[in-house]
Amino acid sequence: MNGAESLVKTLLAGDVDVCFANPGTSEMHFVAALDLHPEMRCILTLFEGGATGAADGYFRMTGRLAATLLHLAPGFGNGYANLHNARKAHSAVLNIVGDHADYHLRYDAPLKGDIAGVTRSVSHWVRSSTDAASVAWDGADAIRAAMSGNGRIATLVLPANAAWDKAKGIASSRAPVPPQRPSKTLVAAAAAALWRPGAALFVGGAALYGDLSRVAGQIAARTGCRLMSDYFVPRIERGAGAVDIECLHYPVLENAAILKDVSEIVLLGAGRPVAFFAYPDKPSTPEPAGCPILDLCAPDMDIAWTLKALADLTGAEAVEPALLSLDLPELPQGAMSIENLGQALAALLPEDAVVVNESVTAGQPLADATRHARRHDWLNNPGGAIGEALPLAVGAAVGCPDRKVVVLTGDGSAMYTLQALWTMAREELDVTVVVLANRGYKILWGELANVGVEKPGETAAQMFDLTDPVLDWVSLARGHGVPAARAVDMSQFIAALREGLDRPGPYLIEAVC
Amino acid sequence: MNGAESLVKTLLAGDVDVCFANPGTSEMHFVAALDLHPEMRCILTLFEGGATGAADGYFRMTGRLAATLLHLAPGFGNGYANLHNARKAHSAVLNIVGDHADYHLRYDAPLKGDIAGVTRSVSHWVRSSTDAASVAWDGADAIRAAMSGNGRIATLVLPANAAWDKAKGIASSRAPVPPQRPSKTLVAAAAAALWRPGAALFVGGAALYGDLSRVAGQIAARTGCRLMSDYFVPRIERGAGAVDIECLHYPVLENAAILKDVSEIVLLGAGRPVAFFAYPDKPSTPEPAGCPILDLCAPDMDIAWTLKALADLTGAEAVEPALLSLDLPELPQGAMSIENLGQALAALLPEDAVVVNESVTAGQPLADATRHARRHDWLNNPGGAIGEALPLAVGAAVGCPDRKVVVLTGDGSAMYTLQALWTMAREELDVTVVVLANRGYKILWGELANVGVEKPGETAAQMFDLTDPVLDWVSLARGHGVPAARAVDMSQFIAALREGLDRPGPYLIEAVC
Repeated sequence: MNGAESLVKTLLAGDVDVCFANPGTSEMHFVAALDLHPEMRCILTLFEGGATGAADGYFRMTGRLAATLLHLAPGFGNGYANLHNARKAHSAVLNIVGDHADYHLRYDAPLKGDIAGVTRSVSHWVRSSTDAASVAWDGADAIRAAMSGNGRIATLVLPANAAWDKAKGIASSRAPVPPQRPSKTLVAAAAAALWRPGAALFVGGAALYGDLSRVAGQIAARTGCRLMSDYFVPRIERGAGAVDIECLHYPVLENAAILKDVSEIVLLGAGRPVAFFAYPDKPSTPEPAGCPILDLCAPDMDIAWTLKALADLTGAEAVEPALLSLDLPELPQGAMSIENLGQALAALLPEDAVVVNESVTAGQPLADATRHARRHDWLNNPGGAIGEALPLAVGAAVGCPDRKVVVLTGDGSAMYTLQALWTMAREELDVTVVVLANRGYKILWGELANVGVEKPGETAAQMFDLTDPVLDWVSLARGHGVPAARAVDMSQFIAALREGLDRPGPYLIEAVC
Repeated sequence: MNGAESLVKTLLAGDVDVCFANPGTSEMHFVAALDLHPEMRCILTLFEGGATGAADGYFRMTGRLAATLLHLAPGFGNGYANLHNARKAHSAVLNIVGDHADYHLRYDAPLKGDIAGVTRSVSHWVRSSTDAASVAWDGADAIRAAMSGNGRIATLVLPANAAWDKAKGIASSRAPVPPQRPSKTLVAAAAAALWRPGAALFVGGAALYGDLSRVAGQIAARTGCRLMSDYFVPRIERGAGAVDIECLHYPVLENAAILKDVSEIVLLGAGRPVAFFAYPDKPSTPEPAGCPILDLCAPDMDIAWTLKALADLTGAEAVEPALLSLDLPELPQGAMSIENLGQALAALLPEDAVVVNESVTAGQPLADATRHARRHDWLNNPGGAIGEALPLAVGAAVGCPDRKVVVLTGDGSAMYTLQALWTMAREELDVTVVVLANRGYKILWGELANVGVEKPGETAAQMFDLTDPVLDWVSLARGHGVPAARAVDMSQFIAALREGLDRPGPYLIEAVC
């Protein structure tokens, strides 16, 4: 058994059995080891951002750790943006990055780079194996690091000779570091705060879906506080029967209006709300000046325990949380508009769908329109680096093969990692992609005004505009092996959406809007 | 005048008038400033790797510095791999990376990341402007840093408020740091070495094309030494009338055979030859054991002066260098093969073409076949991070609008940055792209054998194989607005190549081989 095989066995023993891979020469022994272990599902992506974003999506939907296989510093660089997004989503990702054999590093070979520097700049944990005997232990430690703190980015650098030299055996991973819990004093202070008029409980992480969201809803129903979340949360349960959680918006001034009557904020599994960007003469934070913020439980702390403690202290256990009702609109007709698209999605979204949302300017109206649809999970991009939607959908679909995945993405953002379409085709993933083709980086027009530019000129227009030529998404999808249709009015869109939702496997709709 | 405009004016004053851009919100003031200065040519890419690779190609073909405009740490991450390649090519690139306003950095906004860490891991020079008054001076320093050492990666981080606050004026860039020269003793030692039997002069950088390559050829003709270069040189002049420079190959054992009779190596503008990767039981370096290597002039030193000094000392000035002859093959017929493709390219390549080569497994036979074609420049990827060919061609075509650019790329590598096709269409760049569609990462089959794996299994096959589904490059090109044709035999290929070479603007050929 060589180092690479000891690592594959260690991963399997540590419950890691999915690997999103972009291998190169330095990873050949790892690939050979995978050959011996078909129980490791290995999924090829054609660009590393597809692998890292998929691992994020897989974790968000399953809570399980997936590995990525990347090729030296530049391969890691290609996966960087979606690791940034995964980090902001508090997802667990385990990157295995092949490196040159250690004795080859003294030379300036073409692919030699500052692998330590680039990996550390986005990972919580980085280690480079010193020899084959250490690889299994390093792998076990990497799993532990990734699964600690509710999910972290762990990167194991695997020199080629540590992969090909003889190893000693496999290693078993210790349990993740138990997440920290807030003091009872702090919980009591939070409970007292929530009873006061105008209090808001901001929740995040696992409190946004499933049983824990119900506990959060019970606390809110019992104390009368507002139950709120950020806008770009990694995953939130919505639709009929989901707990009613009030989400912030994207623009900071809208959020200031939403929060104007809030007297106190308790954070539980969530960071402090903050403006996406700073703008001249606009605030960096949305809450009223002087509003106290109690940081009860950071996103990497014990969210489940804290919710339970808060429920106990407030006597919320027997209370019914406020739930979202089912309210399906009629199917809209006529011209394409974001409003009509939202209605059609709300009417047709199947029970238990996973919606991946990177629709940027259309995000708020589409989120509003589908809030009372059938029950679904809604995934956002909390890192703001556009180009995660398609890879995230790959990971979600691999993790949840029995659920329909629906992607809502801008055309500009989808272009960043469109290669993920090919992986959807190869793996026959059940994903319907809706590209909202507004032919531009539409949000930047608004942002230009936000930063105080009143009259954009020709260069600005050229920078925001994706016409000349128009991107033909039907051809792009077909080129990747994904069937597709273009819709320019609502009857075409509804027919295409039905087609996508009815058939298994990937399907793309270019919604010209 | 705000900080952003002071920077644009400083760039223009410093002879930087091309910017490959992927702007986001934090760069809005810079975009607005560009609006006021149409003399700055601003070219939109749909993915940051397209911007950084284009800046590399522009520098290689013009010797002029181009800027990139990138969006915070993740945007830089997306451009990382091609900055790695540019660094290995010793190209000058100036990255302008927008960041949050400094007072916003205390919050964990979505796009906040370790911008210092990721930029430093591939840049020679990094600075973050502290305020608007400093931006112009920082820009001037960045230009100087980028243009020193024959070309470096300089990254200027521009906080949003440094861009929007009031600036004091523009700054003029000092001349680049003069490149170091070797001592006369070292030049004399090198000259003495070159006269000895079995000596080889390894040249790189500017010694591989134009007048300086002629000086190198004169020295070789005068002393009788071999004139050689690495395989993946950034740019080399080839074809009829070019100096005859013997290039190494990719496999280290082939290079060991090529160098078996070399008794001494002098490096001039080139690094030491080294195996692309280490392999079990294969050497890391190709020269005979104990072969002395004289490091006369590193790639960032004064190559022109050193060549001249060496020519003076060897009395080479009046000598005629050995030049490549013109030898155009007949147009081949019949089935598609790499050999036939090479012949067709050799026959049809127009005078003064710029060939961008990232054809991986087909690279050696295509390079051999076209060596005696009409005079052309040949650009490789010295960093080994695949996915540079299409962006590099964008930059080369922007820099040399009167020359035909021909891209030879594998299908696997072209997929990494296929968004560059759209920029070719928008800018009407005169580029003919030949995608060598062998439907896989063919080189990895060989690499698997190289590392000692004899019987690849099903997982390995799945990782190397780009069928299921097949990538349809004609659709992919059309989706980006680039006309395209598929060729499955030589008559189709020749017709398509003629079509591409005859028409102005971009054209893509999927050569199924």
